[in-house]
Amino acid sequence: MAPQDNLTAVLYGINDMRLEQRPIPVPKDNQVLLQMEVVGICGSDVHYLVSGRIGPFIVEKPMIIGHEASGTVVKCGKNVKNLKPGDRVAIEPGVPCRLCHFCKTGDYHLCNDLFFCATPPDDGNLTRFYCHDADFCHKLPDNMNLEEGAIMEPLSVGVHACKKAGIKIGDHCLILGAGPIGLVTLLAAKAMGASKICITDILDVKLELAKKLGADYTIKIDKSMSEDDIVKKVISLLGQPPHASFDASGVESCVRVALLSTGKGGKVVLIGMGKFEMNLPLTPALTKEVDIRGIFRYNNDYPTAIEMVSSGRINVKPLITHHYRLEETNQAFETAKTQKGNPVKILIHANPNWKPS
Amino acid sequence: MAPQDNLTAVLYGINDMRLEQRPIPVPKDNQVLLQMEVVGICGSDVHYLVSGRIGPFIVEKPMIIGHEASGTVVKCGKNVKNLKPGDRVAIEPGVPCRLCHFCKTGDYHLCNDLFFCATPPDDGNLTRFYCHDADFCHKLPDNMNLEEGAIMEPLSVGVHACKKAGIKIGDHCLILGAGPIGLVTLLAAKAMGASKICITDILDVKLELAKKLGADYTIKIDKSMSEDDIVKKVISLLGQPPHASFDASGVESCVRVALLSTGKGGKVVLIGMGKFEMNLPLTPALTKEVDIRGIFRYNNDYPTAIEMVSSGRINVKPLITHHYRLEETNQAFETAKTQKGNPVKILIHANPNWKPS
Amino acid sequence: MAPQDNLTAVLYGINDMRLEQRPIPVPKDNQVLLQMEVVGICGSDVHYLVSGRIGPFIVEKPMIIGHEASGTVVKCGKNVKNLKPGDRVAIEPGVPCRLCHFCKTGDYHLCNDLFFCATPPDDGNLTRFYCHDADFCHKLPDNMNLEEGAIMEPLSVGVHACKKAGIKIGDHCLILGAGPIGLVTLLAAKAMGASKICITDILDVKLELAKKLGADYTIKIDKSMSEDDIVKKVISLLGQPPHASFDASGVESCVRVALLSTGKGGKVVLIGMGKFEMNLPLTPALTKEVDIRGIFRYNNDYPTAIEMVSSGRINVKPLITHHYRLEETNQAFETAKTQKGNPVKILIHANPNWKPS
Amino acid sequence: MAPQDNLTAVLYGINDMRLEQRPIPVPKDNQVLLQMEVVGICGSDVHYLVSGRIGPFIVEKPMIIGHEASGTVVKCGKNVKNLKPGDRVAIEPGVPCRLCHFCKTGDYHLCNDLFFCATPPDDGNLTRFYCHDADFCHKLPDNMNLEEGAIMEPLSVGVHACKKAGIKIGDHCLILGAGPIGLVTLLAAKAMGASKICITDILDVKLELAKKLGADYTIKIDKSMSEDDIVKKVISLLGQPPHASFDASGVESCVRVALLSTGKGGKVVLIGMGKFEMNLPLTPALTKEVDIRGIFRYNNDYPTAIEMVSSGRINVKPLITHHYRLEETNQAFETAKTQKGNPVKILIHANPNWKPS
Repeated sequence: MAPQDNLTAVLYGINDMRLEQRPIPVPKDNQVLLQMEVVGICGSDVHYLVSGRIGPFIVEKPMIIGHEASGTVVKCGKNVKNLKPGDRVAIEPGVPCRLCHFCKTGDYHLCNDLFFCATPPDDGNLTRFYCHDADFCHKLPDNMNLEEGAIMEPLSVGVHACKKAGIKIGDHCLILGAGPIGLVTLLAAKAMGASKICITDILDVKLELAKKLGADYTIKIDKSMSEDDIVKKVISLLGQPPHASFDASGVESCVRVALLSTGKGGKVVLIGMGKFEMNLPLTPALTKEVDIRGIFRYNNDYPTAIEMVSSGRINVKPLITHHYRLEETNQAFETAKTQKGNPVKILIHANPNWKPS
Repeated sequence: MAPQDNLTAVLYGINDMRLEQRPIPVPKDNQVLLQMEVVGICGSDVHYLVSGRIGPFIVEKPMIIGHEASGTVVKCGKNVKNLKPGDRVAIEPGVPCRLCHFCKTGDYHLCNDLFFCATPPDDGNLTRFYCHDADFCHKLPDNMNLEEGAIMEPLSVGVHACKKAGIKIGDHCLILGAGPIGLVTLLAAKAMGASKICITDILDVKLELAKKLGADYTIKIDKSMSEDDIVKKVISLLGQPPHASFDASGVESCVRVALLSTGKGGKVVLIGMGKFEMNLPLTPALTKEVDIRGIFRYNNDYPTAIEMVSSGRINVKPLITHHYRLEETNQAFETAKTQKGNPVKILIHANPNWKPS
Repeated sequence: MAPQDNLTAVLYGINDMRLEQRPIPVPKDNQVLLQMEVVGICGSDVHYLVSGRIGPFIVEKPMIIGHEASGTVVKCGKNVKNLKPGDRVAIEPGVPCRLCHFCKTGDYHLCNDLFFCATPPDDGNLTRFYCHDADFCHKLPDNMNLEEGAIMEPLSVGVHACKKAGIKIGDHCLILGAGPIGLVTLLAAKAMGASKICITDILDVKLELAKKLGADYTIKIDKSMSEDDIVKKVISLLGQPPHASFDASGVESCVRVALLSTGKGGKVVLIGMGKFEMNLPLTPALTKEVDIRGIFRYNNDYPTAIEMVSSGRINVKPLITHHYRLEETNQAFETAKTQKGNPVKILIHANPNWKPS
Repeated sequence: MAPQDNLTAVLYGINDMRLEQRPIPVPKDNQVLLQMEVVGICGSDVHYLVSGRIGPFIVEKPMIIGHEASGTVVKCGKNVKNLKPGDRVAIEPGVPCRLCHFCKTGDYHLCNDLFFCATPPDDGNLTRFYCHDADFCHKLPDNMNLEEGAIMEPLSVGVHACKKAGIKIGDHCLILGAGPIGLVTLLAAKAMGASKICITDILDVKLELAKKLGADYTIKIDKSMSEDDIVKKVISLLGQPPHASFDASGVESCVRVALLSTGKGGKVVLIGMGKFEMNLPLTPALTKEVDIRGIFRYNNDYPTAIEMVSSGRINVKPLITHHYRLEETNQAFETAKTQKGNPVKILIHANPNWKPS
């Protein structure tokens, strides 16, 4: 008998997430039907829950949440060649139009007609069964598990940020913010050969994890430190101004530190989305020929992320701190909101057969 | 008999430029002694005259002014191989240490130990006789004159800006500001294959010259136009958001327009030095993966600039509007300050034998 | 009444091209039906006619010939948004799978599952009516005609070769071979800012056209010249070793000259397909850190090519030397084979309403 | 009392290496006098000893041998700022003119006026005391010893080759030849994030060391294997054609395998200097848009190499197999020639106080 249960987490509005049954979808010719397995909670998910919007993206009708996900192929559309039932996959949540200039030049993430899981008005995949274009389902090697598969989404952000920064062997880096995005950037930078990394945060617990993951130096920011103090400390710890700085906080004061610290000819990559407008010391950065680069999610970074974990160069397991069942979605989001227990990555298990190990 | 006259324009302080005799210098082994020929006035020269400083660079002792210059070789130091007496040269005003990381990696303009004509405390070359490192004197081809030689300095800024923007054939560009720097950027962008260029200014006279030099579209900015109006007009004229935008004004409102107009994956190059801090719509630019790049003068751009003029691809002559003798330096600067007669490039002729054509 | 005539040029085997009626095809949802207008003859078409194969590509069943083409949209599939009936288009003949690594990273021309007009076993478009994916039909601007539209195919090869060579303003170039591919490379290099170009051939008539199209220097190769003579002449004419050399001949002796002439740190781009194996002076090229690059057709180059012609930077009209009607296809190929009348681009007009101007 | 002993290894001609006293040199203003410490033997040194020449470089007068070296600063010229007596340094053996186009654009290794230790007619540094330009002496961090310092020279070759190949995280690589150069390329590729490396050789003992240093797969080449067999085995072991292939053998058959194996859009870097002419399957490589790149030594790679070892990302110690005193230079070269005891890096200790550990 075909499965009947398709419990699904739907965001109806601010602080109104409901679990409800939805029909099991049917894959198109180029799609696969997936048994959803592991779905991580991202800061943006919490933002939609709490605020109902992120910038221009507004939750105007009920939206299925979830976009950091792995699944198992249940059924393949008739044109699918790269996958077969039983394959375990990391799901890249953005599917572009495949027709426009951006799609043809390798920048499909900039496509104006991009479907992206759980960005309004597109539904996400925190559900039992979900259909996705097969070529955006990346098969997991045998030595990777489904939890790692779900983490490929945030890791791809870190990989993309480091590619944008042009990280090369021997580089010294500064990362502002030791939340999940700061940490995946740290992991990617190390894998790309960065030799010294200094990371900042306001919480000791985050900096401790950063050290464990390979940070060479940490700076605990507190209110007594002036902008200038922080810049001096960064340069003194690294022994020179960083070749690349990453803002993973979205906070104006951190972006300022990045601009002021980075060495001549260096790069500042802003990963965190901050305020629409910021007051910034741009002139001193520009006269150093520092490039300021933004990133928008990722493109062609899933294969790299998977290769890094599969080859043992990156270990994402220490990022995983909390586990919930799909039925416990609201508790999972409560933990994400309150940050009780210092969560890093909170994973929700969508497969009813999942058992805690 | 050896020449005795070495009349020299020395900036003693705010609005205090004096013409005085200085000893004729003796070239070091790797230097040439030059009969100075043509020296252009740059906005920065006027700034030092009027304000006594630019950012951290302060005129603290009398400084010879002038850095946009051409000359004729009078005498060669004993190690000089690339030049001989009689050669006419464009003088690249910055001479680096040749020893540091930046010098070795091709970014000699970022050298921490750079000598640069007429940037305090270094003397410039608005004088009759001047010594300079021979390898930073670029021999002019027979088909270029000494006035064009002096213009190689600002043209190198335009070339450098366009290289930084990665201008390629078919690109659509926006240039904010149609002063000398905006215009040389226009010339360089056209030579690199940009197919459509829109340029803005507040003065009709400047936009007319820009049209003559190849601008496809001009926008006269006036106070009645909102930021949004300008952005829309740029995109509508070009038929699409620009691939690259250049701020050649240093004005915050122009930088804002550049950030808001530029298309996904595009580049914003800030040539104009503005305020230390600016309030900017950074987030919308970054989510388009627009790179924001600063430039600091130029490096390895003189040969390109000379090649462009020599091969007939760029004509800089329309930029030259005013001529003065060295003895008339104060009148020349008065014209530069008041902008009477709508000067673009004002040239001072340092060779006493110069005759107006 | 719907059109009935779909006369089509079908290659049945060596020297066996037949004109026959074929059914008018029906566009898929993402395709357009095109009234074919102008189809150029490419060297590869002649090669299939004469030899029945090019390397691994063998004509094993009747194949419609033609791939350098323009057309007018007759009907749009239901998902087509970028075109409407009446639009005139340049047809990019290669359509990739859109799913693989190469398609996603901007190298769709390297797709292992590429459809390409008139490369066995795929049919071409020398026919009255033809269907093609709408996003690979590039709308012609009003100021371009359908003959120019057909020339966008070879021009894209030249653009791609110059992008691969990284041509930048001021570069000195060597082009070996002044046939159609050598000439479009010349046009593209000039548009990208190359300042001096030397081109070689064995025929005066080709070199004369090259001069007319902008070549600065020409070398007529004859049997009395040694390899060394040619290399010396190239360097002497350009005044220095070329920054980039292009082989547009596929002949081993030309590739050798390219490798020996090119300056330190330069590029050699091989456009012509030569023998499977060649005996080459690789070591001297490599110790100069000369990069040797191949090109395979083009990708993302049609928009650039169109922009160049539309903006007036490139004039392809002098390349067009001969015109035939679809009914005269065999005569057209005869001219191509015999080279009688020194053809450069031979165009076949597929629209029965075409009238010679 | 000043030191008197300056025993020096001088190559007088084929198989004629003599140890003789030379005067202790005096550093110029920008130089340091070095107590030479460790000097490795390179394949090129052996080549000069055995053949008296390498390509155009001929030993025409007695030449001091040695260029893979470390030393301790004894005395500084008056303009030296970056070093002080007692500093331990890795000596970059090439010193360029600092004046030409190549020096200014970061490609100083291509300078036409390069001094290079032990390349005729320039003397090397297998001697007790030697003077070298201070900015080409790279200070060793406290955690690196003088033997590692000497190995920075071959490691720089590997770093340069990998930079030229554009190695990035996740890349699959093929290295042909597991001699010292193949092994340093392996180490550098791993440090830059290559995830799978296949290396070939004809000797088991070399492949075993390669495995120990991180090779994922090894192929022992023997005469029974056809070119095609090797290509298939490479692709099968890596699971796909390599992104980059390195020839570290200089042998035509290896270059052929590199060209045939490498995947579409990949890179083939030829490190080994082979015959002047080679017969190569160039067409199949070029239609895959494989770039073929040569390297000439290195530039700006010493700092990267040092950073890699200092940060623990690369361990070069397993490469060091043999130690000799300066007095035993001829025995050291005998071992290098005969390859008895399977030497990898043979080090000669020039400091008379050296004691085997």
